[in-house]
Amino acid sequence: MELTHFDSNGNARMVDVSDKEITFRVAKAFGKIIVSDAIFDAIQNKEIKKGDVLTVATTAGIMGAKKCFELIPMCHILQLSKCAITWELKKDKNEVHCFSEVKCEGKTGVEMEAITAVSIALLTVYDMCKAIDKKMIISDIRLLEKQGGKSGFVVNE
Amino acid sequence: MELTHFDSNGNARMVDVSDKEITFRVAKAFGKIIVSDAIFDAIQNKEIKKGDVLTVATTAGIMGAKKCFELIPMCHILQLSKCAITWELKKDKNEVHCFSEVKCEGKTGVEMEAITAVSIALLTVYDMCKAIDKKMIISDIRLLEKQGGKSGFVVNE
Amino acid sequence: MELTHFDSNGNARMVDVSDKEITFRVAKAFGKIIVSDAIFDAIQNKEIKKGDVLTVATTAGIMGAKKCFELIPMCHILQLSKCAITWELKKDKNEVHCFSEVKCEGKTGVEMEAITAVSIALLTVYDMCKAIDKKMIISDIRLLEKQGGKSGFVVNE
Amino acid sequence: MELTHFDSNGNARMVDVSDKEITFRVAKAFGKIIVSDAIFDAIQNKEIKKGDVLTVATTAGIMGAKKCFELIPMCHILQLSKCAITWELKKDKNEVHCFSEVKCEGKTGVEMEAITAVSIALLTVYDMCKAIDKKMIISDIRLLEKQGGKSGFVVNE
Amino acid sequence: MELTHFDSNGNARMVDVSDKEITFRVAKAFGKIIVSDAIFDAIQNKEIKKGDVLTVATTAGIMGAKKCFELIPMCHILQLSKCAITWELKKDKNEVHCFSEVKCEGKTGVEMEAITAVSIALLTVYDMCKAIDKKMIISDIRLLEKQGGKSGFVVNE
Amino acid sequence: MELTHFDSNGNARMVDVSDKEITFRVAKAFGKIIVSDAIFDAIQNKEIKKGDVLTVATTAGIMGAKKCFELIPMCHILQLSKCAITWELKKDKNEVHCFSEVKCEGKTGVEMEAITAVSIALLTVYDMCKAIDKKMIISDIRLLEKQGGKSGFVVNE
Repeated sequence: MELTHFDSNGNARMVDVSDKEITFRVAKAFGKIIVSDAIFDAIQNKEIKKGDVLTVATTAGIMGAKKCFELIPMCHILQLSKCAITWELKKDKNEVHCFSEVKCEGKTGVEMEAITAVSIALLTVYDMCKAIDKKMIISDIRLLEKQGGKSGFVVNE
Repeated sequence: MELTHFDSNGNARMVDVSDKEITFRVAKAFGKIIVSDAIFDAIQNKEIKKGDVLTVATTAGIMGAKKCFELIPMCHILQLSKCAITWELKKDKNEVHCFSEVKCEGKTGVEMEAITAVSIALLTVYDMCKAIDKKMIISDIRLLEKQGGKSGFVVNE
Repeated sequence: MELTHFDSNGNARMVDVSDKEITFRVAKAFGKIIVSDAIFDAIQNKEIKKGDVLTVATTAGIMGAKKCFELIPMCHILQLSKCAITWELKKDKNEVHCFSEVKCEGKTGVEMEAITAVSIALLTVYDMCKAIDKKMIISDIRLLEKQGGKSGFVVNE
Repeated sequence: MELTHFDSNGNARMVDVSDKEITFRVAKAFGKIIVSDAIFDAIQNKEIKKGDVLTVATTAGIMGAKKCFELIPMCHILQLSKCAITWELKKDKNEVHCFSEVKCEGKTGVEMEAITAVSIALLTVYDMCKAIDKKMIISDIRLLEKQGGKSGFVVNE
Repeated sequence: MELTHFDSNGNARMVDVSDKEITFRVAKAFGKIIVSDAIFDAIQNKEIKKGDVLTVATTAGIMGAKKCFELIPMCHILQLSKCAITWELKKDKNEVHCFSEVKCEGKTGVEMEAITAVSIALLTVYDMCKAIDKKMIISDIRLLEKQGGKSGFVVNE
Repeated sequence: MELTHFDSNGNARMVDVSDKEITFRVAKAFGKIIVSDAIFDAIQNKEIKKGDVLTVATTAGIMGAKKCFELIPMCHILQLSKCAITWELKKDKNEVHCFSEVKCEGKTGVEMEAITAVSIALLTVYDMCKAIDKKMIISDIRLLEKQGGKSGFVVNE
């Protein structure tokens, strides 16, 4: 079992993808934030404020996906052709669910971009609601699905 | 209940902290990544590789804390006086636990910096291990403790 | 008449503000974008889309203010204590007006941050509407008012 | 009439350009800054200082074009193959005119890069001259010409 | 003899590479830091600390290579397909030698990325050791080898 | 002998400067680039091109100093109050000498900012001249002088 980010002497390195083929890549990721009743209601409330929290968070998530190569040391720079973020409000559990989808044509996948998008979007929700209370938890950040490249089509249930 | 990041017309804004006092601030945060046996062993393994995964992730987390104001739209720029990241390997649960501590003297707290540090560090672990398998989950990102400012000393159990 | 960004040999430099006093600073700026009927209606339309264009642009403008020191070569890094952006829709002229207000306590003013915030916010409006037509014009970007520092209170009519 | 930056539920998103063809793209933009006599003369003056103000501004404008994807939330990352900025000094009107030209081969155009280049270049002129007076106005920022992609050749008179 | 970064009027510009062919590019660079006995021993010492200094510096160097287009005004954005940094400890001379290798497929070479990687990696070594003494010298930063593009294979002895 | 960037378990960390006093800090650094006759003449030549190479490099160096905290993992964010770069052309040795001076009031020094400014400025000279030949060497980057903080006044001959 080998960690591909290290060379044979244990030096960290950006994996050499020079010989990989350019293929069409898609990755979808998920994450959620668990909030109090008061925060949930403030977000779900049909005032303009609701749309705004999630719009600001969506904006931050998309910008975060584009900054992935700057944040994650061994990530490659990729020319993303799509980045979208959508939300689901789960009233019964006081959870805000976040989904991302990222596409690109390149030599390496967009898994990290999709997961980073979700992470930054959820951090932004946290930031915008933290004046109400400080017990929010960001959880279950993971890859949902991945397409393209050597590992082909991968689905995580 | 009011979301302080919006003005009275619902426009998003960076909260005005001009009239706040400069106080000494500390924030501690936590997060974890749940991995497979194979990944856990690769990280824990007493070869040089172990140190390296976590050193690269520590480096990324500290750099992420300093980029917090760039990533989270309504965060203020702060002059951090400390940022540290530590790790605990939980063999029984195949979990890698990440702790951050951030300090600053300023008009607003370093809660977001601490949580961002943990998030970016865990994303880096994910990235460096994802060649082994893609079922890792990043979870339980939250504030542990906060000191300074109007809300004083806050501990989340 | 002397351009303060050059030393006596003509080299560009960041002005030395070491000996200046720390004072409270405010700057307000203005700018507008002139659009077609179709774009104006799409923005003003009471659907969720309206709020969103301006919320994304507000978010970008605030983030742009924080990046001012990175964009404008001779600008100092400042710890902004407030950044807000507001909008006025001028139906009769098909103009979207943008106002920014920035505050900080520092050795130099936040004029550039206020003007940069407006510029980036308007560029974002342009970007989000350019699929409809490409004849928009961004205009009249200027300082409205400035407070603090050696030049005291300045108002541009 | 549809704003392409929103999906069918009104969420902001980066437009999906996956299925677009890669074509050769050019965009040219314009903008100007209106200054006082004193500033105009300081810039136009045949001392080394003149070249320098505009060289620093040119440098900032080119760097700004490369940062466009970071500044404008829904912009794609593109591999620019050219970015150039030129200037014209209009003595009779005390105006400094700025022109940009950007090229790339990609799935989406470089219109925003060209307009951003001009904006950042003019903001830099403002910054470097603002010690003389604070009444400068940045105006008439717009697309001059665009080539490549679905909309083909576009000229704005 | 012509400096290709200026147009015929002397304006700085990013060189137009639109008509260049996409070829496979490699660049290798070198640099070193000369340190005191005490620092050399602290780095070479078989404790975990040694690995860490160089791992942090390797991480910074790779991230620096990816930021090259942001740092060096006239550099193009490139999609690097590899970036690796290796080290040699020269006990007899108290020198730490740093080597980088960068690859990409593009219209322009990765020479600057390779040299920037080495520079940032060595600056990081300096930073992490400067508490011991402040007489370190970073030297001999240069291109070792270059492949691809019009100038073909270049080796500097 | 202790490397202050590691905690007692060997984790990399940003040094805690919370308890340090705010003092006035100055740092001066030096570096040079050794070039061919052809490049030296192109730079020294009394055409506008000369001023421009060094003006672009000065601009990049100043911007690099402000990005130091982003580039060097364990550096603190500081509010620089001055950054200046000056040059000396040494015809007899075909060397371009670069000097930086950085000031700030803070809890930690600006040594890294001064050295980074010189490094980025010299990399920019390299980039702008590399079309002529690729044998340039960047050398002798070091601290000249440092003032403020616990170590007081330090001069390196």
